Amino acid sequence: MKALEERILAEGEVLPGGVLKVGSFLNQQIDIDFLMQMGKDIAQAFEDCGVTKVITVEASGIAFAVAAAYYLGVPVTFAKKNKTSNASPDVYSAYVDSFTHGKTYEIMLPKEYIKPGERVLIVDDFLACGNAIKGLCKIISDAGATAVGAAAAIEKGFQGGGDELRRDGLKIHSLAIVDSMDDGKIVFRNN
Amino acid sequence: MKALEERILAEGEVLPGGVLKVGSFLNQQIDIDFLMQMGKDIAQAFEDCGVTKVITVEASGIAFAVAAAYYLGVPVTFAKKNKTSNASPDVYSAYVDSFTHGKTYEIMLPKEYIKPGERVLIVDDFLACGNAIKGLCKIISDAGATAVGAAAAIEKGFQGGGDELRRDGLKIHSLAIVDSMDDGKIVFRNN
Repeated sequence: MKALEERILAEGEVLPGGVLKVGSFLNQQIDIDFLMQMGKDIAQAFEDCGVTKVITVEASGIAFAVAAAYYLGVPVTFAKKNKTSNASPDVYSAYVDSFTHGKTYEIMLPKEYIKPGERVLIVDDFLACGNAIKGLCKIISDAGATAVGAAAAIEKGFQGGGDELRRDGLKIHSLAIVDSMDDGKIVFRNN
Repeated sequence: MKALEERILAEGEVLPGGVLKVGSFLNQQIDIDFLMQMGKDIAQAFEDCGVTKVITVEASGIAFAVAAAYYLGVPVTFAKKNKTSNASPDVYSAYVDSFTHGKTYEIMLPKEYIKPGERVLIVDDFLACGNAIKGLCKIISDAGATAVGAAAAIEKGFQGGGDELRRDGLKIHSLAIVDSMDDGKIVFRNN
């Protein structure tokens, strides 16, 4: 999505440790019109896949998931990272190593929110090592549902997670793929 | 909003400790059409307030904030609860006691995402004791911006936070106000 690449170049910041900061429009602050355009692009990429539900992990994936689900006409559900007092004890779960947070956490989804036979699209803001997507794939599989694919706003191609998932046969749709950020210079794939 | 009250009665569960579980359509799993209807209702309630930004706290407030901001035509920003490796050190912050989580946490918003003179609408899924809204009001005030009001999907009237904020002069728009849940029976205000 050319508009996203242009915006990343204009407003993104490369921080030490391989972090791409796009909080000003995509993450902690969200340009709604732009978000909805991205949601529409994701929905079009999966419109023939019979998606019945969009799934993400809290927190920064929720806005994307809402936008994509709006155009797909299906509900959203999100896996939580922390157990709260109203969480169901009856959950599917997976362990995920977070690149941004530098730690491993458990993601959990109550069994009542994902049913056997559902066709689930995974949506997230970033795809780096692919650990969140792998965790969600495990939950979807444990539930007897099918992952039809995964969509991300920004894939960090140089971290390899996206290509690994493609080799495993999962349809991956990333709106922008950053293949390198060496010396602060952002290079997109196929450009 | 009558449709929300009906849905709470049909699908909500009253759990021990004053917890109202509406995860099946409003929280951890989201009915998108219904979410957008609620966003439109919130936008209409504040359409004459010159709102320049919608603000919420991660995670469950994000979907509502996106829906309301879509109809208001303004950006969304959300305060984070946990410091991550790409968080700016230059933040506004406040401490918030969480009813659901049974603990106190710090909410943080980078200074770059809220500017003096902005007219900010606070949006959240639940309004109970009002602590999240009070924390966001402090952040908005610290930034030299103005809180034009707060909108919640469900206000737990019996916990008093909404009425306290109204007495303090803040415009509060709750789509459904639960005035009691004694013995598991949900009673709405003005019904």
